[in-house]
Amino acid sequence: MTLKLVVVGGGSSYTPEIIEGIIRRYDSFPVTDIVLVDVEAGKEKLEIIGRLALRMIEKSNKAIHLTWTLNRRQALENADFVSTQIRVGGLEARSKDERIPLSHGFIGQETNGAGGIFKAFRTIPVLLELAKDVHDICPNAWIINFTNPAGIVTEALLKHSPHKKVIGVCNIPFNMRHSTAEILNVKPDEVSIEFIGMNHFVFGSKVLVNGEDRTNEVLEKVTHDLDYSPANIVNLGWTKTFIEATGLLPNPYHQYYFQTADVLKKDLKAFKENGTRAEVVQDLEGSLFEIYKNPSLYEKPKELEERGGAFYSDVACSLMDSIYNNKQDIQTVNTWNHGAIPDLPEDAVIEVNCIITKNGPKPIAVGHLPLSVKGHIYQMKAFEELVIQASITGNYNDAYTAMVMNPLLADEKRSKDVLDELLEAHQAYLPQFNSRGI
Amino acid sequence: MTLKLVVVGGGSSYTPEIIEGIIRRYDSFPVTDIVLVDVEAGKEKLEIIGRLALRMIEKSNKAIHLTWTLNRRQALENADFVSTQIRVGGLEARSKDERIPLSHGFIGQETNGAGGIFKAFRTIPVLLELAKDVHDICPNAWIINFTNPAGIVTEALLKHSPHKKVIGVCNIPFNMRHSTAEILNVKPDEVSIEFIGMNHFVFGSKVLVNGEDRTNEVLEKVTHDLDYSPANIVNLGWTKTFIEATGLLPNPYHQYYFQTADVLKKDLKAFKENGTRAEVVQDLEGSLFEIYKNPSLYEKPKELEERGGAFYSDVACSLMDSIYNNKQDIQTVNTWNHGAIPDLPEDAVIEVNCIITKNGPKPIAVGHLPLSVKGHIYQMKAFEELVIQASITGNYNDAYTAMVMNPLLADEKRSKDVLDELLEAHQAYLPQFNSRGI
Amino acid sequence: MTLKLVVVGGGSSYTPEIIEGIIRRYDSFPVTDIVLVDVEAGKEKLEIIGRLALRMIEKSNKAIHLTWTLNRRQALENADFVSTQIRVGGLEARSKDERIPLSHGFIGQETNGAGGIFKAFRTIPVLLELAKDVHDICPNAWIINFTNPAGIVTEALLKHSPHKKVIGVCNIPFNMRHSTAEILNVKPDEVSIEFIGMNHFVFGSKVLVNGEDRTNEVLEKVTHDLDYSPANIVNLGWTKTFIEATGLLPNPYHQYYFQTADVLKKDLKAFKENGTRAEVVQDLEGSLFEIYKNPSLYEKPKELEERGGAFYSDVACSLMDSIYNNKQDIQTVNTWNHGAIPDLPEDAVIEVNCIITKNGPKPIAVGHLPLSVKGHIYQMKAFEELVIQASITGNYNDAYTAMVMNPLLADEKRSKDVLDELLEAHQAYLPQFNSRGI
Amino acid sequence: MTLKLVVVGGGSSYTPEIIEGIIRRYDSFPVTDIVLVDVEAGKEKLEIIGRLALRMIEKSNKAIHLTWTLNRRQALENADFVSTQIRVGGLEARSKDERIPLSHGFIGQETNGAGGIFKAFRTIPVLLELAKDVHDICPNAWIINFTNPAGIVTEALLKHSPHKKVIGVCNIPFNMRHSTAEILNVKPDEVSIEFIGMNHFVFGSKVLVNGEDRTNEVLEKVTHDLDYSPANIVNLGWTKTFIEATGLLPNPYHQYYFQTADVLKKDLKAFKENGTRAEVVQDLEGSLFEIYKNPSLYEKPKELEERGGAFYSDVACSLMDSIYNNKQDIQTVNTWNHGAIPDLPEDAVIEVNCIITKNGPKPIAVGHLPLSVKGHIYQMKAFEELVIQASITGNYNDAYTAMVMNPLLADEKRSKDVLDELLEAHQAYLPQFNSRGI
Repeated sequence: MTLKLVVVGGGSSYTPEIIEGIIRRYDSFPVTDIVLVDVEAGKEKLEIIGRLALRMIEKSNKAIHLTWTLNRRQALENADFVSTQIRVGGLEARSKDERIPLSHGFIGQETNGAGGIFKAFRTIPVLLELAKDVHDICPNAWIINFTNPAGIVTEALLKHSPHKKVIGVCNIPFNMRHSTAEILNVKPDEVSIEFIGMNHFVFGSKVLVNGEDRTNEVLEKVTHDLDYSPANIVNLGWTKTFIEATGLLPNPYHQYYFQTADVLKKDLKAFKENGTRAEVVQDLEGSLFEIYKNPSLYEKPKELEERGGAFYSDVACSLMDSIYNNKQDIQTVNTWNHGAIPDLPEDAVIEVNCIITKNGPKPIAVGHLPLSVKGHIYQMKAFEELVIQASITGNYNDAYTAMVMNPLLADEKRSKDVLDELLEAHQAYLPQFNSRGI
Repeated sequence: MTLKLVVVGGGSSYTPEIIEGIIRRYDSFPVTDIVLVDVEAGKEKLEIIGRLALRMIEKSNKAIHLTWTLNRRQALENADFVSTQIRVGGLEARSKDERIPLSHGFIGQETNGAGGIFKAFRTIPVLLELAKDVHDICPNAWIINFTNPAGIVTEALLKHSPHKKVIGVCNIPFNMRHSTAEILNVKPDEVSIEFIGMNHFVFGSKVLVNGEDRTNEVLEKVTHDLDYSPANIVNLGWTKTFIEATGLLPNPYHQYYFQTADVLKKDLKAFKENGTRAEVVQDLEGSLFEIYKNPSLYEKPKELEERGGAFYSDVACSLMDSIYNNKQDIQTVNTWNHGAIPDLPEDAVIEVNCIITKNGPKPIAVGHLPLSVKGHIYQMKAFEELVIQASITGNYNDAYTAMVMNPLLADEKRSKDVLDELLEAHQAYLPQFNSRGI
Repeated sequence: MTLKLVVVGGGSSYTPEIIEGIIRRYDSFPVTDIVLVDVEAGKEKLEIIGRLALRMIEKSNKAIHLTWTLNRRQALENADFVSTQIRVGGLEARSKDERIPLSHGFIGQETNGAGGIFKAFRTIPVLLELAKDVHDICPNAWIINFTNPAGIVTEALLKHSPHKKVIGVCNIPFNMRHSTAEILNVKPDEVSIEFIGMNHFVFGSKVLVNGEDRTNEVLEKVTHDLDYSPANIVNLGWTKTFIEATGLLPNPYHQYYFQTADVLKKDLKAFKENGTRAEVVQDLEGSLFEIYKNPSLYEKPKELEERGGAFYSDVACSLMDSIYNNKQDIQTVNTWNHGAIPDLPEDAVIEVNCIITKNGPKPIAVGHLPLSVKGHIYQMKAFEELVIQASITGNYNDAYTAMVMNPLLADEKRSKDVLDELLEAHQAYLPQFNSRGI
Repeated sequence: MTLKLVVVGGGSSYTPEIIEGIIRRYDSFPVTDIVLVDVEAGKEKLEIIGRLALRMIEKSNKAIHLTWTLNRRQALENADFVSTQIRVGGLEARSKDERIPLSHGFIGQETNGAGGIFKAFRTIPVLLELAKDVHDICPNAWIINFTNPAGIVTEALLKHSPHKKVIGVCNIPFNMRHSTAEILNVKPDEVSIEFIGMNHFVFGSKVLVNGEDRTNEVLEKVTHDLDYSPANIVNLGWTKTFIEATGLLPNPYHQYYFQTADVLKKDLKAFKENGTRAEVVQDLEGSLFEIYKNPSLYEKPKELEERGGAFYSDVACSLMDSIYNNKQDIQTVNTWNHGAIPDLPEDAVIEVNCIITKNGPKPIAVGHLPLSVKGHIYQMKAFEELVIQASITGNYNDAYTAMVMNPLLADEKRSKDVLDELLEAHQAYLPQFNSRGI
């Protein structure tokens, strides 16, 4: 009996983390085959990662058979799990997602605002193709998506692909749990947080330690003590007033929405000094791959943690383990709302605590949104629907509406300028928009 | 440190089961104190049960301190759990609930139809008083209600008492899981069923064995093989057509709604031959208490199982264990909908799979109701709201509307006759209706 | 400029009423062309009606050009309004709809219960074909449907045909307004009633006379004084208790649901004495057509009023007049819910007060359903969805579910027997069910 | 028989418009008594307005008896209609609402953003008092509220006062209809617009001329031709892209949300040149009252139109006329949603086309919000709920949440600064906040 994992975007610098995760869980989750897949442009990186992964497995003494290939359809045969960690257009495209909005006075970020919208535009059609392949070739396989914007991408796949076994993961809930554990000086396993909202806009509404409610203690400390921003986003802290008035634990991405001016200022300064985050990462990745090449490296180097998406792959491995073993434990993933938040559409994707079963995640009911943030959450969800619609239709008006209805861009004249420049810049990766002849 | 359980209605013939359940779980759920409480009228029975319970504990060698009393408020001091298994008006009242509707050509049953409505009318005010006491005296205690109609009673408490730590339990989901396990020849622990609906009107929509979907296999066998009716209700079987067309696993109570004429016929025949079920049970209880009296009886006698509500107490013990230990396992209980079924009000009580935590049950989202039964479920829920309203207002028009909107009674003229006779018969236990001077 | 009306089912005995209505409204609604269409089987009747209609127009001195034909597609050319009053299978089919359920101990009625379900099964596919033709040939025409079950048929057309200009009408709201006016001794034009629910299950929640609320006065009198049952259904009256407790004005069809046993008894008696209503009507129609043939008859004979559907056509004429003139007056029609009752699906068809405009009816918001009847209304609407689904799929399980989920048939075994017998009896008119080879 | 109107805030410069409206409609709406009421601080203005009103009535030769008083409770006796046009704190308070936000870099406007929030904070408690008086003294009277923010104030009254006969009016829908008529070169009476949303955030979704849909024609012209900004707000025009992409007719207030930067720039410039709008209006009012004093002035002077709220009173008079006569015509007012927009709470107040009856406005169902704006509308409505909550609780955290959840202020740090400064500045008019001892 085989247990096969296909890593789409296998040449990513994150892959060693996923390999490490698989090795670590081998006893309960005995993967027999791993195939790393990538596109032509990533061939060289794929080779480097493939060799490092082989060395890691060799050292682990586990009976895992690992190969790599550019032939995706072949790789998918008999797959049980397919993880996705792709970046359509590479870091160059990301650089444009950051640069162009910044140059118009808007926040330029890879998963929020104009940058996030365009990452969605480029990614959704490619992953819809993948999902179709999965559905044809290995219809029982679960797609574990950690390609950003993870929530929007997962909703697009669940709504528009024939394949319904798709789960989105993000490291933010994981990070919030770990940081909170640190604040309270307990072990992360003892902490559970009740979440409300969706990917990159999720709030913690309750913090429990072994079932005891310690929310207030966390909220009191969060303004000064908490630093759970991943490496790729700022950490400006929160006023006591905001935390007290909402009674909620924000996530780092909320800074974009509630500290817009300050974040923009800081980002512009960083941009002037170091270029975009994409460019910083490009350097970082260069060094990482140099390290990866080292034939005497047999493990995930600790430099990877600085990369920004730390723990993303760990979250994914943990999820696959629970599905495989029908563990029925609670994990926070992106899946159908299914009524968990009755204010949002039943087929919306939310980030929600779920029981993880062999049949996938079953969301735990959250109940009505608190008045303090329900307006914002509803608006963000409506915005996400607009992004998905535009990603698929390639309709200019849809793209424009998605832009102007985003709170970071809500300017009928200026968001058109950014839109036009981004459409031009990313033309090669937006075939669905090309019919309009830009 | 103490762990105290108060059993309200401690003189019930079921109590030995709860004592057995507590003893069996002692290692994980180390109860230190049990107080059995009952009312004056049940004094003698309480004494018999108390002595039997003491012998059971003695034999078990567990350090559990058990007493009994008629002083409820005193009993509640420092309680951690309060279970309720009361019967306002005793079996005599039940006999009227069965006899009077039958005499008008309606199904007479203690939890459905006219009988269920009047059991609710008698019970809700009494348990609201209890809940108020609990809230005053031991505000951190959980009320585990297994007084019928369990779903309606639980909704009444959650909506109208200040105490919100209330959970309702029923043995039907437990029985369905066990019978299904038998059909599939697997262990009950391996089976999980996805439920939709509410107490006494719950359907199984999916049957999983260790996470594998084996629903179709069960549905095929259910028409001939399945017997999961508890002792107190008929078992007429189901047509293949009904099961196939709905794709759902009905529960025994559904016979009242979809086999009304046949059930009524059978009940009338049984009534002629043996009197009401209440009367049968009265005899049964007489014998049981004779057995209980036996000073050399040190365990729950197996005759108890014929009593009808078997496993009710076991379900309750299992629930308390999981709350105490923050087990986060899945159990089927009656609690706030909280959005789990977005078609029903958020504050409706449904019977639903929940994660059981120290903070109580968290329902797993069920999603929209299937079209085939959503009309019925919605109607039953609206009917339940009417019953609760009438229980509290004591308003004649509310009581009448509750009657006439129940599918078993939907007759504007004849349900008035039954209503009037039942109001008269139960007058002593319906102070809230007395102002109208019947 | 032309204004053309096509009457589908033009050979119906009701047609003289519609002709009279057109003539009477000629000044404001100047119809230039009327085409009566029917099927081969109705050729003779069509001829009789056509000649009578010509005489009526001749006497009126209006410039209306009337013809009749069996060629429906040709008739539709340039139509502005298309009214439908068809009976698939004729009165013989209706006789079976009444006879077969009665023989199984269920109410046999042409628009409710098993009969109504089968009338829907036979009618919906035929009218979907018509709607497709209308959409192709005269896409701007309004279909005014008064073929029963009018609400279900209208919902089927709006949901499943490409043509969205469809409005359903029924004479019940009209009759309720007129009877209420009589009770209050005022003119019908002065009365407006607020309605909640859907066709044949609509309640009056408020009665206004020139805007003054006189609901209580009507409710008090309704138990003895009111007779607004049309000729085709019984009139057993209502108890004071029902009216008081609900605070609503029921419609005659509600007797089927709240006086089931009595109606059934009365219907069985009538059946034994006079055969089915269909058979009574068959005789009535025979006489009517004899009267219609009289070459010196130049007007709608008053015998038509006994026929049962009186004022149906008048309601339709009044509706067309208001659309044509963008009158923006209030009429009660069957159209999209569109949120008017937020408890029901937005695309459900309800019977609701609307502003009648050139763009069709705009429902006036009704608000949440009163608790007393929301369960029933929701259930009836879910039942209607099942009927429509089965009408289109021709799936046996769907048909069975529609039957068993109807409150008049809710018996898992016996409703299968009625279903099978009706499917057999109506085989010739149910091509969609034929693939299962009954 | 009397017909009495009480004008609360009768010393307002708008009052001559209302007097003129009453005189003009005298034949159909024969007001017999008018009482102008104001507070001590407005005594002098009240006198001037009173005398002018008397001269206007005298000239009209209508039998209207007009008086003025500072005794509100006495004035309310036997009132049929009570209109409200008050400004708590006068133009000085308005000046602060504009000045303080501007000084922090936020839009300072009297009905939107921070200014609107504080106008609500000051106004709601005062009008709740009035509504209580009305309920006590003249419970059958309709309150016609045109005090801003009209939508929020109306929702607060309907939710929190015992008096439910309250309707809010605004001149924006009226202006949109008139400007659209001008664009299409037709008479305003021929135009009807379908509106979606709420006061100051309402969109036109369809423009009909005598029932013909001419929306596209209007949308095409709106970018260059349309000027329906009232005197008090900017008019920057709209891009073709915005109009095309949304397919909706925005209202002038939408500029604050979709042209924020440009409006702010323009407002800051205007502020530097002319001071706040409040100060401009103060001058304007000074001149107006000079004109009003002229004993030979017998009519509303045309200078009043420059004042900003033109037609507000006309809208109110027209509404009262339709209620009085049960006209059942369509007017756009602020009232309970009542399901008209199923996406919004049933008890939210929306700006919606209604049938105007003796029993008040009945909203015409609007249906689901278009995806393009549903996020924004939902957010604004949630924000409004927060404002109302804070107005009543006087809770600092509620006030802060209302601020930070407003799209014009969404900055967790800076909106606190504005909040604190405004709370300080308006302290005298915010007794509900005073307990916190600022």
